[in-house]
Amino acid sequence: MALQKIMKMHSLWVLIILCLLCPTMICGGKILVVPLDGSHWVNMKVIVEALHSRGHQISVVRYPDSWYIKETSPFYASITLEMDSGFDEDFITAFASKLLEIQREGRSAWARFKLEMEQASIASEMHVHTSKMIERLFENKKQIQSLQEAKYDLVLTDPVLPVGVIIAHYLRLPIALNVRWTSHGEGHFAIAPSPLSYVPLPGIGFSDKMSFLERVLNVIVFGLAEIHTTLNVLPHYDGIIKKYLGPEIDYLSLFQAADLWLMRVDFVFEFPRPTMPNVIYMGGFQCKPAKPLPEDLEEFVQSSGEHGVIIMSLGTLIAKLPHDLADAIASAFARVPQKVIWRHKGDKPATLGNNTLLVDWMPQNDLLGHPKIKLFVAHGGTNGIYEAMYHGVPILGVPLIFDQHDNLFKIESRGAGKVIDIFTMNEDIFYQGIQEVLNEPSYRMNMQRLSRLHRDTPIKPLDSALFWIEFVMRHKGAAHLRTESYKLPWYSYHSVDVIFFLLTVALLMLLCFTVLIWSCYKTCLKRKVKSTSKGKTE
Amino acid sequence: MALQKIMKMHSLWVLIILCLLCPTMICGGKILVVPLDGSHWVNMKVIVEALHSRGHQISVVRYPDSWYIKETSPFYASITLEMDSGFDEDFITAFASKLLEIQREGRSAWARFKLEMEQASIASEMHVHTSKMIERLFENKKQIQSLQEAKYDLVLTDPVLPVGVIIAHYLRLPIALNVRWTSHGEGHFAIAPSPLSYVPLPGIGFSDKMSFLERVLNVIVFGLAEIHTTLNVLPHYDGIIKKYLGPEIDYLSLFQAADLWLMRVDFVFEFPRPTMPNVIYMGGFQCKPAKPLPEDLEEFVQSSGEHGVIIMSLGTLIAKLPHDLADAIASAFARVPQKVIWRHKGDKPATLGNNTLLVDWMPQNDLLGHPKIKLFVAHGGTNGIYEAMYHGVPILGVPLIFDQHDNLFKIESRGAGKVIDIFTMNEDIFYQGIQEVLNEPSYRMNMQRLSRLHRDTPIKPLDSALFWIEFVMRHKGAAHLRTESYKLPWYSYHSVDVIFFLLTVALLMLLCFTVLIWSCYKTCLKRKVKSTSKGKTE
Repeated sequence: MALQKIMKMHSLWVLIILCLLCPTMICGGKILVVPLDGSHWVNMKVIVEALHSRGHQISVVRYPDSWYIKETSPFYASITLEMDSGFDEDFITAFASKLLEIQREGRSAWARFKLEMEQASIASEMHVHTSKMIERLFENKKQIQSLQEAKYDLVLTDPVLPVGVIIAHYLRLPIALNVRWTSHGEGHFAIAPSPLSYVPLPGIGFSDKMSFLERVLNVIVFGLAEIHTTLNVLPHYDGIIKKYLGPEIDYLSLFQAADLWLMRVDFVFEFPRPTMPNVIYMGGFQCKPAKPLPEDLEEFVQSSGEHGVIIMSLGTLIAKLPHDLADAIASAFARVPQKVIWRHKGDKPATLGNNTLLVDWMPQNDLLGHPKIKLFVAHGGTNGIYEAMYHGVPILGVPLIFDQHDNLFKIESRGAGKVIDIFTMNEDIFYQGIQEVLNEPSYRMNMQRLSRLHRDTPIKPLDSALFWIEFVMRHKGAAHLRTESYKLPWYSYHSVDVIFFLLTVALLMLLCFTVLIWSCYKTCLKRKVKSTSKGKTE
Repeated sequence: MALQKIMKMHSLWVLIILCLLCPTMICGGKILVVPLDGSHWVNMKVIVEALHSRGHQISVVRYPDSWYIKETSPFYASITLEMDSGFDEDFITAFASKLLEIQREGRSAWARFKLEMEQASIASEMHVHTSKMIERLFENKKQIQSLQEAKYDLVLTDPVLPVGVIIAHYLRLPIALNVRWTSHGEGHFAIAPSPLSYVPLPGIGFSDKMSFLERVLNVIVFGLAEIHTTLNVLPHYDGIIKKYLGPEIDYLSLFQAADLWLMRVDFVFEFPRPTMPNVIYMGGFQCKPAKPLPEDLEEFVQSSGEHGVIIMSLGTLIAKLPHDLADAIASAFARVPQKVIWRHKGDKPATLGNNTLLVDWMPQNDLLGHPKIKLFVAHGGTNGIYEAMYHGVPILGVPLIFDQHDNLFKIESRGAGKVIDIFTMNEDIFYQGIQEVLNEPSYRMNMQRLSRLHRDTPIKPLDSALFWIEFVMRHKGAAHLRTESYKLPWYSYHSVDVIFFLLTVALLMLLCFTVLIWSCYKTCLKRKVKSTSKGKTE
């Protein structure tokens, strides 16, 4: 007891000494986290837990209808806003199913157009609702006051929706973004020059080496996306921004003023492109070595013998696969000598083979790191792709919605997987896909090459993210890494005004020169005429 | 003895086991280093020694007239080429003195033009000579064969001259550049988008926030620099490149194909600007904590009492300061209560005070790290600036030639130093400059802020450089970090062809539409006329 007392008395001193000895560590920083729900929170949670373990106090903003983000946690205190996010589990899964339905209708331009319209309409709805939610937050004086009084050091947020950046601007706090997308496209487009000649738009399905027609399409889609942002995103926030943040701020600048962009990107996976000094790449930061499997699962895996195991997961958004699809997949699996672990929701397919184990949930990372796993049948969510890459398991991709097509296209273009189109998929095509990725060694070799490159870093992606978050807290921002060029009007940014000015000067000089030559010529001519006429009269 | 024998026998096994345990380490890589002489070698040597200490075999290419690069060294084997570099110590210092002379003539546009012409002419001369030197190397079959047989893993080179990249291409080896400049300007301009609206050209003396006229000048100077490169650099190498490397290679692509750009840049010092994934920033990698001073120097420093010490060095290139300048400086120093250590070549100034110690050489880094040092009077070479920044000592800058103006401008724009123009400098101005930087606390505070930011990195700049050099060796390149967009013609890179195509399509559509409307209108008109005339005839 005496020892305990002494330790308690001295613990403050020890803490102070530790802080002095360890200048790169901040003790007890206060961080406000404004996440997005769903799979984005799965990512954010990894960082929240790591920050908590480094001694920071975390407050997480959530909604009454939050889905993944729990109210109580040993890692954070939660702040539940007054109004629903409006996008709970049911809503999102229904929306995802609808998108899948449209995609299965066909590959026509009309189907594609319908899909884009549906996504644009839901995005617009999301922004209308979010802006109302933010308005309601500002009207709740008590909640705003409590946020102000908490004296946070930093706001860490996901920029798909602008809730976090608006709060950060209002509280005048440094911002770190945990980013894959922003509401106006892929994160880089907001701050780094993105020449459309070799930077494909997200979701367009081109590589960094485009044909002329692909480049034309890239420019057109960029234009359409800009129009969408101008019509469907910006107007909803204009009022709030002017009212609460000031007239000189606009929507895009809320994001551009972020001190840190923690990008969930690794160039082993993404195509090389220009970047900025305040972008930190942490793609695959959630990956970790595999832990041993639960006993029953290990037994099932071992029972596969030399053939090994295939695992399949299509993520959480698509709650139930359509019956015909599920049956085709089950029949194809029944034909392979491998054992199969399939994360499946809904009714058991009629054609299910004995080799296939249906599960509600699986320890995906631990399975992918198991030496018996030969193939990952995946929908192409970013988390799963990075885990497969980390463990070097080739992918048979069945992209469903959102960025999944794009993610899997990149894996395919590196020879580390094959993509099957859900529109044309049937039992045979799926079976042949499995056979090809299993039996053609290049898929596995390429994925293992990606894995070697991905793991070979001077500092682990998560450690890098933590370092830079704390850097921003230590120095109260990272202004020296952030360009303010976005404050220039577009014609100045692209030097259009300068080129116009130089052309005008050149034209004026040419004009003066021409006038000069012309008048000289005329003077000479007059003189000549005069002298001739003089000569004649003389 | 027995123990030694056993250790010898087992050392190979220990080495093999260590290599297996430590996959991020390469044992016994072979690196060909093609450096530039002078202060650039001072930098390169730091990396060479560090690579040597990590077990790599280094070969350094030098010339019979090499100046800093010694033939024998415990850290590397040297390969002396047949032909002189043509740019030995005497030549370079004479050139530097000439530039200084021109600068002292005045601040007129004519003086500036003369300076630029002199530099362009010497650059052209340098490239003519270098191309001859490379030709001679290729003609020396024995030397080329020995380079081929050495089976290097990597070429590490300074890209001011293209000797290293040409050898690397010929030997088909991965390239790492240790870079501050390339022969066509600042390193970034060769690979990263550099919007001229906020990326000032090197040496132009503008910040990243330019006025309209500054932006105009930035564009004009960029144009002139491009013309200079096209006329004075590229033609000299065309023949060699086509003859020895192949018709599809051009000069710029030799550099753009580098796997790694180790930039001697830190954004604490440089303005934020776009970058690329294969650029690693190692600005200040040569900085290290101060070692104790030699006894006599420590005694002199301590004798300064509470006033502290000023140190002054104008680098190695300007061998002798003009008498009037040296006298003005000496008189100003004689008036301050501080002690002064002045690295000075040439005659002792007549006006030298008792407080001033003239030295031939000084342990600059150890002095800058000494708590008694209050001010650094510097010419603004990159090495000295980073050392001052590392140790947080404010600078009174006396820029002489090359990039020194630009370097010191950046320090001044961050409030961490003051620049004195050598053209207008006299005793009083110099004295007031010293007083201002010593007595206005903001200079020291700002420099110490830069120091804190500069030192706060997740991995030391030198360790980062070493990691990435070994990364390139391990993976035989870093193709996934390198864009190949530079292979596009300029009009495709900037999407000019796409915009032209889209405008043409839009115009054609407008034309079709107009023709359609016009013909409809005419048809309607005809019918009306007909029906009217019919009506009339009826």
